[in-house]
Amino acid sequence: MNIEGPVCPVPLSRYPAIVMAHGGGGRLMRDLIENAFISAFGAVGDRPAHDSAALDLPTARIAFTTDSFLIRPLYFPNADIGELAVYGTVNDLAMGGARPLYLSASFILEEGLPVDTLMRVVQSMSRAAADTGVAIVTGDTKVVEKGRCDGMYITTAGVGSLECVGTIGPAEVREGDTVIVSGDLGRHGIAVMAVREGFAFGTQIVSDCAPLWDPVQALLASGAEVHCLRDLTRGGLASALVEIAESAHIEVTVTEEAIPVADAVRSACEILGYDPLHVANEGRFVAFVRSDHADRAIEALRTCAVSADAVSIGRVTARGEGRVLLRTVGGLRPVDMLSGEQLPRIC
Amino acid sequence: MNIEGPVCPVPLSRYPAIVMAHGGGGRLMRDLIENAFISAFGAVGDRPAHDSAALDLPTARIAFTTDSFLIRPLYFPNADIGELAVYGTVNDLAMGGARPLYLSASFILEEGLPVDTLMRVVQSMSRAAADTGVAIVTGDTKVVEKGRCDGMYITTAGVGSLECVGTIGPAEVREGDTVIVSGDLGRHGIAVMAVREGFAFGTQIVSDCAPLWDPVQALLASGAEVHCLRDLTRGGLASALVEIAESAHIEVTVTEEAIPVADAVRSACEILGYDPLHVANEGRFVAFVRSDHADRAIEALRTCAVSADAVSIGRVTARGEGRVLLRTVGGLRPVDMLSGEQLPRIC
Repeated sequence: MNIEGPVCPVPLSRYPAIVMAHGGGGRLMRDLIENAFISAFGAVGDRPAHDSAALDLPTARIAFTTDSFLIRPLYFPNADIGELAVYGTVNDLAMGGARPLYLSASFILEEGLPVDTLMRVVQSMSRAAADTGVAIVTGDTKVVEKGRCDGMYITTAGVGSLECVGTIGPAEVREGDTVIVSGDLGRHGIAVMAVREGFAFGTQIVSDCAPLWDPVQALLASGAEVHCLRDLTRGGLASALVEIAESAHIEVTVTEEAIPVADAVRSACEILGYDPLHVANEGRFVAFVRSDHADRAIEALRTCAVSADAVSIGRVTARGEGRVLLRTVGGLRPVDMLSGEQLPRIC
Repeated sequence: MNIEGPVCPVPLSRYPAIVMAHGGGGRLMRDLIENAFISAFGAVGDRPAHDSAALDLPTARIAFTTDSFLIRPLYFPNADIGELAVYGTVNDLAMGGARPLYLSASFILEEGLPVDTLMRVVQSMSRAAADTGVAIVTGDTKVVEKGRCDGMYITTAGVGSLECVGTIGPAEVREGDTVIVSGDLGRHGIAVMAVREGFAFGTQIVSDCAPLWDPVQALLASGAEVHCLRDLTRGGLASALVEIAESAHIEVTVTEEAIPVADAVRSACEILGYDPLHVANEGRFVAFVRSDHADRAIEALRTCAVSADAVSIGRVTARGEGRVLLRTVGGLRPVDMLSGEQLPRIC
């Protein structure tokens, strides 16, 4: 963290809940920064405290991204908002072919939030950053009146170094490319929904929330020609494919029975009337790969636990019209993104 | 912006207010991104749309920072939350001696927010970015239920290139350094308070909200040895000086009558019982400069309109104990930061 604290901080334990003054720029905010954030995220080397972090990057070619996280509830099976805030931004960097290096973390806290809740989330962020090899180097804290937030909102931004030789993005997609998904779909959305709505589906379904740089790195190292990567968050596989198809002006055809969905997730979707193709994931991605490199790509992905079930689900069948088709037992049907989403506040 | 929109977006005009689906990852969100953000911020060159922006920096030595903005009201005399969100982050980069280059912008929108309000703020951000020479290259949009936000919260993060030869920060401050402020204090805090509370003070006081890279650049180009820079936001001059004094373990002595405060601001502070040293600014900063370079530094600052009234207010009088002293007609008195602040939600 790039902010040093006061010499003699007021003990945080004197305040069991967040008060407006924790965001006021005075003593109490310094105390919070010192005791919650710096103790968890560490200082950046021996650099002096300041408004911004000074960083030496391995390259001047970077990826830069941001995401806000306001998931409800803050905790869910397998992860919490803190891990989500780290992995979500790390994954957006990875999808650009960039090695995640540095994160910023900006907190909007609700007056009355238990300090213990904040500390738990900050610890999750710290662990998630360490697991992913990124440093949280700069931040901000604001407090809003009770009711003007939902516990806490976290916005992370990330800087990564671009290591891939070529460009990765929709414009690189070619006719004939193989479409690969890194694992089974829908776990995150169903896990959060189950907690929020109080449903139980026999087997507990846990979120797939996970960092994705390792599988991307394995994929790039395999030598397979990777054209586009996209994580399957809000809007699920359907939104990701439709976005890529429309922006690259290509037709993508995927085969329904090839798309992996766990039985428990499929059952939950049937009960709730959801289509697993639209359900959010936080640890799954799609890769468009040169077709004769697909076996090599899948083999590389399967070396990582998070993408051990990577599988081909279809291919780019034409250029021109941007659309996605689903091959079912009954024939081909078009796939579209939803207007909104099934479940708000999923990330 | 690093996200391309759909081929045929639904007209935004069909939705006069933000609905939950604008944050859902589907069609309506694509439409909002296309019509509000990409049309205002532009695409990044001819780069393909993606989850992160790919950037070529002039140097691998960067500054990185973030801030969330949740000021109430969204508009205030001389600026609005959009300009504040751009200048606030630009200024944190400038205070590290970095040329601001790229910003991310993450929006948390309240269900029911008039789309016109969002468009006005986005236009302000676009103008502010152009004025400052920065590009807004990546972003995120989330929507929360009515009441769970206050119109909109904006989080920006920034990347800048470090151009100064030495390091700028509290650890560089030396005994004997001259302390310079870039202009008169307290305009932003009083301007916002006046609108919020419905006060009138005869003369309308307008916010000092402004970008500060130009004066920093002039200062660095003057050849004056600059040791530390800090913008005087939440907590005002007092908090900035105390923070620097405590983290650098120095004693700073400033002279009350040398500290510039406009008559209208001074009167307002007297009426409200505020100390101008604690009132927030958004276009003022303090510089610690080698004392025999102070004249050169002040001359350089005065070449920029935003710092035309730059003036020396004191110096670093000792090493050891971190504290700030104010020389008044009645003698020396210690200055401390407040526990919180006088006016919450000021930025």
